[in-house]
Amino acid sequence: MSHEGNPLRMGMVGGGQDAFIGAVHRSAARLDDSMRLVAGALSSTPERSVRSGEAIHLSPDRTYPSWEAMLEGELALPSDQRIEVVSIVTPNHMHYPVARAFVEAGFHVILDKPMVNTLQEAQELAALVDKKGVIFCVTYNYSGYPMIKQARHMVGTGQIGAVRKVIVEYHQGWLATRLEETGQKQADWRTDPTKAGSGGAIGDIGSHAEHLARYVTGLKMEEICADLTRFVPGRALDDDASVLIRYTSGARGMLSASQICVGQQNNLRLRVWGETGGLEWQQEDPNQLRTWSSDGPEQVYYRGESMLSAESLEATRIPMGHPEAYLEAFANLYRAVALAIRNDHSGDQAIDYPDVNDGLMGVQFINAVVQSSEGKPHWVSLGR
Amino acid sequence: MSHEGNPLRMGMVGGGQDAFIGAVHRSAARLDDSMRLVAGALSSTPERSVRSGEAIHLSPDRTYPSWEAMLEGELALPSDQRIEVVSIVTPNHMHYPVARAFVEAGFHVILDKPMVNTLQEAQELAALVDKKGVIFCVTYNYSGYPMIKQARHMVGTGQIGAVRKVIVEYHQGWLATRLEETGQKQADWRTDPTKAGSGGAIGDIGSHAEHLARYVTGLKMEEICADLTRFVPGRALDDDASVLIRYTSGARGMLSASQICVGQQNNLRLRVWGETGGLEWQQEDPNQLRTWSSDGPEQVYYRGESMLSAESLEATRIPMGHPEAYLEAFANLYRAVALAIRNDHSGDQAIDYPDVNDGLMGVQFINAVVQSSEGKPHWVSLGR
Amino acid sequence: MSHEGNPLRMGMVGGGQDAFIGAVHRSAARLDDSMRLVAGALSSTPERSVRSGEAIHLSPDRTYPSWEAMLEGELALPSDQRIEVVSIVTPNHMHYPVARAFVEAGFHVILDKPMVNTLQEAQELAALVDKKGVIFCVTYNYSGYPMIKQARHMVGTGQIGAVRKVIVEYHQGWLATRLEETGQKQADWRTDPTKAGSGGAIGDIGSHAEHLARYVTGLKMEEICADLTRFVPGRALDDDASVLIRYTSGARGMLSASQICVGQQNNLRLRVWGETGGLEWQQEDPNQLRTWSSDGPEQVYYRGESMLSAESLEATRIPMGHPEAYLEAFANLYRAVALAIRNDHSGDQAIDYPDVNDGLMGVQFINAVVQSSEGKPHWVSLGR
Amino acid sequence: MSHEGNPLRMGMVGGGQDAFIGAVHRSAARLDDSMRLVAGALSSTPERSVRSGEAIHLSPDRTYPSWEAMLEGELALPSDQRIEVVSIVTPNHMHYPVARAFVEAGFHVILDKPMVNTLQEAQELAALVDKKGVIFCVTYNYSGYPMIKQARHMVGTGQIGAVRKVIVEYHQGWLATRLEETGQKQADWRTDPTKAGSGGAIGDIGSHAEHLARYVTGLKMEEICADLTRFVPGRALDDDASVLIRYTSGARGMLSASQICVGQQNNLRLRVWGETGGLEWQQEDPNQLRTWSSDGPEQVYYRGESMLSAESLEATRIPMGHPEAYLEAFANLYRAVALAIRNDHSGDQAIDYPDVNDGLMGVQFINAVVQSSEGKPHWVSLGR
Repeated sequence: MSHEGNPLRMGMVGGGQDAFIGAVHRSAARLDDSMRLVAGALSSTPERSVRSGEAIHLSPDRTYPSWEAMLEGELALPSDQRIEVVSIVTPNHMHYPVARAFVEAGFHVILDKPMVNTLQEAQELAALVDKKGVIFCVTYNYSGYPMIKQARHMVGTGQIGAVRKVIVEYHQGWLATRLEETGQKQADWRTDPTKAGSGGAIGDIGSHAEHLARYVTGLKMEEICADLTRFVPGRALDDDASVLIRYTSGARGMLSASQICVGQQNNLRLRVWGETGGLEWQQEDPNQLRTWSSDGPEQVYYRGESMLSAESLEATRIPMGHPEAYLEAFANLYRAVALAIRNDHSGDQAIDYPDVNDGLMGVQFINAVVQSSEGKPHWVSLGR
Repeated sequence: MSHEGNPLRMGMVGGGQDAFIGAVHRSAARLDDSMRLVAGALSSTPERSVRSGEAIHLSPDRTYPSWEAMLEGELALPSDQRIEVVSIVTPNHMHYPVARAFVEAGFHVILDKPMVNTLQEAQELAALVDKKGVIFCVTYNYSGYPMIKQARHMVGTGQIGAVRKVIVEYHQGWLATRLEETGQKQADWRTDPTKAGSGGAIGDIGSHAEHLARYVTGLKMEEICADLTRFVPGRALDDDASVLIRYTSGARGMLSASQICVGQQNNLRLRVWGETGGLEWQQEDPNQLRTWSSDGPEQVYYRGESMLSAESLEATRIPMGHPEAYLEAFANLYRAVALAIRNDHSGDQAIDYPDVNDGLMGVQFINAVVQSSEGKPHWVSLGR
Repeated sequence: MSHEGNPLRMGMVGGGQDAFIGAVHRSAARLDDSMRLVAGALSSTPERSVRSGEAIHLSPDRTYPSWEAMLEGELALPSDQRIEVVSIVTPNHMHYPVARAFVEAGFHVILDKPMVNTLQEAQELAALVDKKGVIFCVTYNYSGYPMIKQARHMVGTGQIGAVRKVIVEYHQGWLATRLEETGQKQADWRTDPTKAGSGGAIGDIGSHAEHLARYVTGLKMEEICADLTRFVPGRALDDDASVLIRYTSGARGMLSASQICVGQQNNLRLRVWGETGGLEWQQEDPNQLRTWSSDGPEQVYYRGESMLSAESLEATRIPMGHPEAYLEAFANLYRAVALAIRNDHSGDQAIDYPDVNDGLMGVQFINAVVQSSEGKPHWVSLGR
Repeated sequence: MSHEGNPLRMGMVGGGQDAFIGAVHRSAARLDDSMRLVAGALSSTPERSVRSGEAIHLSPDRTYPSWEAMLEGELALPSDQRIEVVSIVTPNHMHYPVARAFVEAGFHVILDKPMVNTLQEAQELAALVDKKGVIFCVTYNYSGYPMIKQARHMVGTGQIGAVRKVIVEYHQGWLATRLEETGQKQADWRTDPTKAGSGGAIGDIGSHAEHLARYVTGLKMEEICADLTRFVPGRALDDDASVLIRYTSGARGMLSASQICVGQQNNLRLRVWGETGGLEWQQEDPNQLRTWSSDGPEQVYYRGESMLSAESLEATRIPMGHPEAYLEAFANLYRAVALAIRNDHSGDQAIDYPDVNDGLMGVQFINAVVQSSEGKPHWVSLGR
């Protein structure tokens, strides 16, 4: 069943002018009419919140000066006007208080990654979500790509055999110099431990890489050994991370996350080899999936081909050969969350989105990496 | 200035269930909130129109059984409720009567390509649009890609010198068998001369190739020699086209459009060489532009890089390395049309969209190709 | 059976200092010890012949001042010392007299393409070779690539069905300016009709493209329509060729050969589509073959994989993943010619090389293209 | 000055029937006439040595039953007939005794990698070579690729700034199953510690990766942390290696060497990022080098382009666009060794080949990796 034209009422915290990810979330919501923005506290300063609301033609009476005001204001509205879901797209340090407050009040929540900045916050939030029974999504958006769903299907149905080796990389170059000194807003908070948390590159993009590998392979980490580096002089957080991984199954992994790789943009790339096959996917060329098997030639699958898995095909909108990309993958999360909120299982779209437990595992990973890299890098257990 | 949240009121003719391109147009409109669908005559049969309207949650009182009813109904509404623009996404043979009627009535129009099925219709429509002064866009959507705008900029500013050779191809494989016999709706009308017009592959996709080459190079055709073939037995229209082109400037071109290239999906690819350089772009990998010059290494530009032209950067939404694709390119046309309708020149988005004259030149091209291929292929002048 | 260490005695005409292709031929001969150079008339001027012989440590008493002297000198030697085969690597205009004389004298001949400069010469040479029964190879060297042999095998065994469409291109950029004016030797004779013959780009590289398409598909041309252009002012021969092809089977082809495509080096690329599949190969990435079928994903085959055809595997020397390239493909012709001369069918290497009839068909093609392009390009029959 | 036709006299130990690398060495020697094989002890069993000599037409009186017999026999010949250089291409465990004996006797030596199986042997051999003053080459053949020489030039001349991050991988899939049980000769000795030494994948291909990164960057390892795995049950040596590297300069590295990556062939790939740029090269596509800088677009350099460094251009034989590959790179080592033996500095070919100290560093690396991986992987110093 089509979603077009029947959107949920959404609020947004963060995502005002100069932000990048807020507009992405709004486009993702709009693409399928999954949700329609009706309220916002778009900035941490009241004036900027108002200006940002105007810029996107948000109704003035629901453009709030702060997230606390929005929470209060929306709760005061009749339930058929009140927002149903809030999308939180602030810098990391605001994730916990805002998410906690909205979950407490019974709102469904969509939250950027990493979920929160400490393991304790993550555990508390997971418990609270469980208690309140709300829908809670952490936007590990790369898992929304159709060919990633195909990769997950292939691994899950044994098409490459038991997984042996995983290599996942996320390489960017935009922080190869001390951009944070120039006042660039994105660089500023991401390199500030009071906002970003204890991880730099490992938190910002390493967490995406960790989730992507987990989503596709289903493997659990047993222990990791990580070397975090600050290449740019004066920087307070890591801008490069190299991680050895041992999975509980005996598989091995390597993860590289770096923001000093000059010329790289968002080069998120996953390779997985199992006993009888392998596969490769790259975010910058997301419509294809390269696969290998022990008894045939290399094969390249393209998004939308009829031979693909149901999960992959449900996640696609337009015919093969007309590329889809980042926004569509992001929109797949919004669409799944909207279905989950409506508890609508009537269509063929799987209700598949990263939830609070995925967020918790992500925080555990960042935590372990930072701990491993203190002093001489050493092995740290992810054991539960 | 952001467009979000201030959409124009749009109607749609065609684009109901089983159609492909209607949903694309609606997504393109929604992506930036350029336009919001408020009325529709979504199918040629009344019942299907209604069902299609329901499926996308269109208001029942503005879900019309026919385009004539919609025209009448909307004209009866106050001007501040009435649609401002109509998007026409029917099979080709309906383009002319519907577009003509809405232009006559003073509506702005967005129309699929090829504009109409005969040269006379094209000329009449161009004259009418001129007379009525409405905004009229023909959705040669590939010209909306940011790296195509970069290519146009590079050629236009002399970065490859005077153009010598153009090779443009659009290869698909979906009509390699007689799919139209299976009842597949897309194949059915596209291979039926009473609906598609006189061109098969040349009209359906060759027209995109023709426009893309023209948009990037600015060259005018002097004459062409075309070999149209019907490879699939029983098919009434060409499924393969090979065209030699002589431009008025002395440049030479080759155009290949085919729907029998097994394994090809939407492989639209443009290569242009000038006296001092060259460039290459492919629709299935649209975020990059490969360029050559006589005095340096091959260079690859990626969408969103700060060194790109203003036209290219204005046409991009999200940062480099996060791929954009087909829908975003399509949405660029909708955004430009919305600005044109509002006559809004305040932003930095160029008001650049293919207009009725582009549509006319496209019909002239198809016409010449079909004429050239009658009997033994011979040279036909595009002279004006 | 290995060939190493049992070479035939070879002479060479042309290929002295400043030449390019002579050294390639000698490397190709040496790579498998197919032939060992023992005599040479390496230049058209006696002094340069001597100096060129010295530079490659050729025995002074078999370094001849002219090809006539070599012919005479070698005939005067006992048959167990005399050269068995001569490799002719002169500019085109010398092909005929030299080849004719050596064939007349009963020597086996390896000759560069295009075979000769006129159709009459080609027919006479073919008749002479037939009469004398010598082995005669025209070095359409690209047919020596293992993945081209795989492509030929796949087409020949019906794996893509009856061929419908062939696109073959050979694009270079080195003649985008008037290089011949600078005294560059390679450019000089290739743009001079008294040496190169009536074809410029079409003869020099278009002939390779023509042979490659023929070798892989086995198709015969029925008629062609060609547009030859001289883009560089003052140039006497075409530097760009665009050709429409109708094959006798009903298949269609497009051939583009150009030496003004700035940034292109030796971009020879073949695409073939049949009723049920297709394939693509590029000379600059020769170890892979991309294939498509109507009922499965895209497949990429790599040279040396055990699933490849016997013809392909016999033409490979080193394991898959260690790339082979131009010289190995060239050496495959020398190896085949050596087996043919020895009449050695004991091994598994197929005795497969382009012969005098391939050379004749190549000259017919160039001839037809030049004729087609005189005046307004028109269709010319290749009929025999 | 050309080398053609003036070869050194070469002997070979190992490289008989069923071997792979012997034929490669011989082709590499022949390609430029650098050396000509005149004597051989081609197998460890006398009968097979003789049969192998016959197969390649080696003179029977210099086809020796054992390397000891060859050493004795050659020493008994007059110095102008005696071999000048010996190429040792046996399994690893024979490297030390054979190389030692020939160096002792004053022969120049070309030896496969890894040089020897223990650190003590490596140190003794290095000292002996130094004492005897012979030319000694370890065939880290990938360093012979022209675009690797270009990469080394670019790093060495500061074109990417001080190196920060190195990622080097060598992935194969041929040992994903227990191939050694089938009697396959190549698999058999490579997985047997009594022949291969203490390293499996890390010794066989990891050593190539280590050298390549060192050759291009010039960095020295400070310490490493390695996780060696035996994925295939019953295998005695590692078939997968993941290594974290800290260089003395502060740069960081990751090295992955694996022989269980199904579908990978010889995927040796190097990426290096410095403060202001980066580069990438892949062995299976060796004619190009991709580079990035902080102030311009991505650039792709192709072998043979005139803008490349002298070192790169000297290492190339045929014009750009005609691909060169594995054998040519290998031949570059033979050519350099031949020049070194002749002490010929007259030409423009740099005398650049991996020597006994490179071999020693390679053994140190393997040693450290094996040591690091004993018990829980831990950091091991490469300190000197």
